Amino acid sequence: MNLNEKLQKYNEWVFRMSAYRMALSIIAIDKLTVAPEAGADYRDKRTAFLAGELFSVQTDPEMAQLLNELRTEESLDGETKKAVELYAKMVHDTVCIPKDEFVASEELMNASYNAWLEAKMKNDYSIFEPYLKQVIEIMKKRYEYRGSDMPLYDQMLDDYEPGMNREKYDAFFGALKERLVPLIKKVTEAEQIDESFLHQEFDKADQKKYMDQILAYLHFDPSWGYQNETEHPFTDGTCSNDMRTTTKYLKDNVVSAILSTVHEVGHATYQHDVDERYDGTILAAGISSGMHESQSRLFENYLARTGAFWEANYDGLQKQFPQQLGNVSCEQFVNALNIARPSLIRTEADELTYPMHILIRYEIEKGLFDGSVSTEGLDRTWDDMYEKYLGVRSKTASAGILQDVHWSGGSFGYFPTYALGSAFAAQFVRKMRQEVDVDEALRSGHFEICVNWLKEHIHKYGCRYDADEIMKMATGEPFNVNYYLDYLEDKYTKLYKL
Amino acid sequence: MNLNEKLQKYNEWVFRMSAYRMALSIIAIDKLTVAPEAGADYRDKRTAFLAGELFSVQTDPEMAQLLNELRTEESLDGETKKAVELYAKMVHDTVCIPKDEFVASEELMNASYNAWLEAKMKNDYSIFEPYLKQVIEIMKKRYEYRGSDMPLYDQMLDDYEPGMNREKYDAFFGALKERLVPLIKKVTEAEQIDESFLHQEFDKADQKKYMDQILAYLHFDPSWGYQNETEHPFTDGTCSNDMRTTTKYLKDNVVSAILSTVHEVGHATYQHDVDERYDGTILAAGISSGMHESQSRLFENYLARTGAFWEANYDGLQKQFPQQLGNVSCEQFVNALNIARPSLIRTEADELTYPMHILIRYEIEKGLFDGSVSTEGLDRTWDDMYEKYLGVRSKTASAGILQDVHWSGGSFGYFPTYALGSAFAAQFVRKMRQEVDVDEALRSGHFEICVNWLKEHIHKYGCRYDADEIMKMATGEPFNVNYYLDYLEDKYTKLYKL
Repeated sequence: MNLNEKLQKYNEWVFRMSAYRMALSIIAIDKLTVAPEAGADYRDKRTAFLAGELFSVQTDPEMAQLLNELRTEESLDGETKKAVELYAKMVHDTVCIPKDEFVASEELMNASYNAWLEAKMKNDYSIFEPYLKQVIEIMKKRYEYRGSDMPLYDQMLDDYEPGMNREKYDAFFGALKERLVPLIKKVTEAEQIDESFLHQEFDKADQKKYMDQILAYLHFDPSWGYQNETEHPFTDGTCSNDMRTTTKYLKDNVVSAILSTVHEVGHATYQHDVDERYDGTILAAGISSGMHESQSRLFENYLARTGAFWEANYDGLQKQFPQQLGNVSCEQFVNALNIARPSLIRTEADELTYPMHILIRYEIEKGLFDGSVSTEGLDRTWDDMYEKYLGVRSKTASAGILQDVHWSGGSFGYFPTYALGSAFAAQFVRKMRQEVDVDEALRSGHFEICVNWLKEHIHKYGCRYDADEIMKMATGEPFNVNYYLDYLEDKYTKLYKL
Repeated sequence: MNLNEKLQKYNEWVFRMSAYRMALSIIAIDKLTVAPEAGADYRDKRTAFLAGELFSVQTDPEMAQLLNELRTEESLDGETKKAVELYAKMVHDTVCIPKDEFVASEELMNASYNAWLEAKMKNDYSIFEPYLKQVIEIMKKRYEYRGSDMPLYDQMLDDYEPGMNREKYDAFFGALKERLVPLIKKVTEAEQIDESFLHQEFDKADQKKYMDQILAYLHFDPSWGYQNETEHPFTDGTCSNDMRTTTKYLKDNVVSAILSTVHEVGHATYQHDVDERYDGTILAAGISSGMHESQSRLFENYLARTGAFWEANYDGLQKQFPQQLGNVSCEQFVNALNIARPSLIRTEADELTYPMHILIRYEIEKGLFDGSVSTEGLDRTWDDMYEKYLGVRSKTASAGILQDVHWSGGSFGYFPTYALGSAFAAQFVRKMRQEVDVDEALRSGHFEICVNWLKEHIHKYGCRYDADEIMKMATGEPFNVNYYLDYLEDKYTKLYKL
C-alpha cells in the first residue's frame, strides 16, 4: 500500500467508527431523555451489541498495524499526525480488552445505571452497592489489560485529562484545601446575604418560557442545538452542527435551571465551535474533560454570575416573575446568585464550595482504587467527609452518595476534572478580559463577542493540541492554580466584606 | 451442523438484525422529532452506512442457505416455522436483486422523491411524471428478479397484505362501489350537520394539557409509550415495551390532534400487545399493513367517534375549553365528529368517503401495471376519477395526484390496505360487541376492556398467523366486506336521518 491507499483505508475506518458512535450517541440521548423505561432491557442488550461492533472496528488488528505505520510517515500534516497518535493510543487501550469482556462490561454498566436510578428513587444505597462493587472490579480488570506501568488510578486520571496524575492532583487539591478551607470558614461566619427571594414558587412553564430568551441571548441556535429536560442535565451530540443539552426545572428555585442551562450550553458551544473539518474524527470527540469543563464553568460562573450578564437579562426575568422579583434589585439578585454556603448537592453547589465537593470525590476514588476505602458503608464514609470538609451531613442516600450518576457507568477519574476546569477557566478569563471588554459585551447583548474569543483561542482546535499547549497559546503561560484562588479570594472578600 | 447449532446461528442472526433495526428506528424517531436540521447531512451519511450494514447481514448468503435447510426441518415448533418462512421470503426477495441494481434503484427513489417534492411545491405534475414512469419500470424489474409466477401487481399487493391479490381486491372494491357511491350521494343531498364549533381557536398548550387525560384514558402508559409532536404523525418503536407516537396540534381544530392521537395509539397498542417472546423477531415486526391499519382505525373510528367514548371524555374537553364548547352538547359534538362530506385530500377525509379515495388509487395502480393507464396525463385521469366517484375536482395537481408521497418511493400495493383495514375493523368490532359491552366499557372509563379483547384475539399473535387466519379465529368466519358496509349504511342512515 502506498501512502494514499493507507490514508484512504484510514479514513474509511474513521468513518465507520463515526457511524457507530453517532448511533450510540443518539441511542444514549434517547435513553436519557424520552425512552420508555420498560423497554430498557431490550434496548440495552442491543446497544451493548452495537458497542461491541464499534469495539470490533476500533480493535481491528489490521488498523493497529496501519496506525503504527502512519505514525512513522513524516509527510503527514500536523492535524492528521495528531489524530493518528490519539487513535493509536485509543486502539492500544481497547485492543487489549477481550471482546466478550468488553461486551459483558457494557451490559453491566447499563444494569448498574438502572440500579442507580432505582436506588436513588427509593433512597436505598444497598440497591446500588453490589453494582458499584462490580463496576469497580470490572474497571480494574479493563485497565489491567493495558499492561501499563502507571498505577491504575493514575491511568484513569490521565484518560480524562492527559498529563494529570495523583501527584499533580494532590498538589492542586492541596493548594485548594490550604486557601479555600479558611476562606469558606470566613464566609460562613460573615454576615449572610439574603437570597430567600430566589426560593419562592416559580411556575415551571413560566421558567421554560423565560429560558427561550436565555437560549437566544447565548446564541444557542435551534438549527444546531436542541434542549430537553432530564433529572441530571447533560450535553451530547453527533457533530458540530448537532448538539443536545438538557436542563432541570425546580419549582422552588428560579436560577437553578438557568445556570445549569448556561453550563451545558458552554459544553455545547465548545463542540459546536470545533473546526467543522474535524467532524466525525477524534480531534473533535476527544477533548479532555478538564478543558470541556473549563468552558461550561466559564459560561456559568465567570459570565452568567456577573452583574453585566444580568444587566442584559434581569429585566426579562422580572417581567416573567413580577410578583416574586418585582421588588428585588438587579444588584441584590446578582449578589444572591453568588452566595456561598456549604451544602449537600454538588450540582447545586456555589462557586466557592463546589471544589470541596470534588475534593471529597477525588479522595474517595483514590481510596477505592488503593483499597483504603470500601463500597460497603460508603454512604457513611461519604457523609463523614461532607461533615469534615463542609460541615454538613445528608439525611438521605439520595442527597448523599446516590446524587451523581458517574460511578454507575464506571467513570472514575472524571470528577477531578470538574475542579480543574474551574481553575483553567479563571486563567482563560483573566486573559480574555485583557483583550476584550467582556462586561460591555455581556451588558449590550453581545455574548457572541465572548464566544468568538473562546472559539478563536480554544474551541476551534478541538484536541488538535493538548490542554497545556492550548493554555500556553491562549494565555501565554503554563497553568497556574493561583489565578483561580486569587479570583475566588478577591470575589468573596468583596462580596462578604471580609 | 446439527439442528441446535443451526438454531443458534439463526437466533444470532435474528438478534444482529434486531440490533441494527433498533438503532435505525431510534435514529429515525430522533430525526423526525428533535434532531437539529444543520446536522442532517452528517447523520444521513452515517445512517445510510448503518442501513447498508443491516442489508449485508440480511443478505448473508450463508443465512439464505441455512434458512432453506431450516424450512425442511419437521421438528420445529409452529412459531419458529412461521418465522423461518417469513425470513426466507424476505431474504429471497432481497438477495435476488443484483446489488448495483438495488443501489441504482435506491438512487432513483431519492431523485424521484425530490422531484415529487418540487412538483408538489410548484404545482406541476410534468416535473414528476418522467420519474414516476421510471419508478414503475424499475419496480417491475425488481419484482421480475424474484422469478415468481404470480402477476407483478399481485406480488406487490401480497407484500403489503399476504394472501391478497387483484381478484380479491376487485371483489372488495366492487362491493364498496356498489353500496357506498349511492350512500355518499344521499348523505351529500341530506340536511347538513353543524360542525363549525370544532373550528374555533383552541390554544395548543391547552390542547396538550387535555391530551394527557386522553392518553391516560387510552392506557397509553408512560412506562412503555412516549408521545411527541411532528408535522406528520407516526408510530414507531423498538420493542413491545417501547412504543413512540407523535401527533400534531392544529390551532383551529380541536379534534384533529385527538383523533390522530387515538389512531397512532391504536398502532402502538397493537405492537405493545404482541407476545413479548416475539420481541426483535419478524413475528413482531412483520404485521401486515391491513392488520395494522385495522387496529388504528378501530381505535379512531369505531371507538373514539362513538357517543360512549365522549360520555367519558367530553366533560374534560368542555372544562378545558369552556368558552368554545360550553354551549355545545355532547351529542352535537359527537355528530359533528362524524359528518361526511366528499373532499379532495385523503388524509383529511371522513370515515364514509375515505375508502373512495383508496378505490381511486387502487384502480390507477392496477392500470399502471396492466398497461391500461399511462403516467402521461395521469393528473387528468386522477381528477376525472375524483369527479366520477366523489363529485369533486381538484383545481391544482398539488391537491390532486401530487398529494401523496407513496408512489415517488415505489410503494405500490400499499394504499389498498388502508381501506381493507377499516373493513377488517368492522368485522372485529362486531364480534367484540357480541362478547363485551363496549359502550359500557367506554362510558365507564374502562378502555382496557376493549384493549384486552383485542389483545387476546388479535394483537398478541403478531404475525404468528396471517390476517385471514386471525380473522377466522377472532370472529369465527372468513372476512366479509358486508359487515363494513352494513355498519356504514346503518351509521350514516341514522346520523343523516336518510
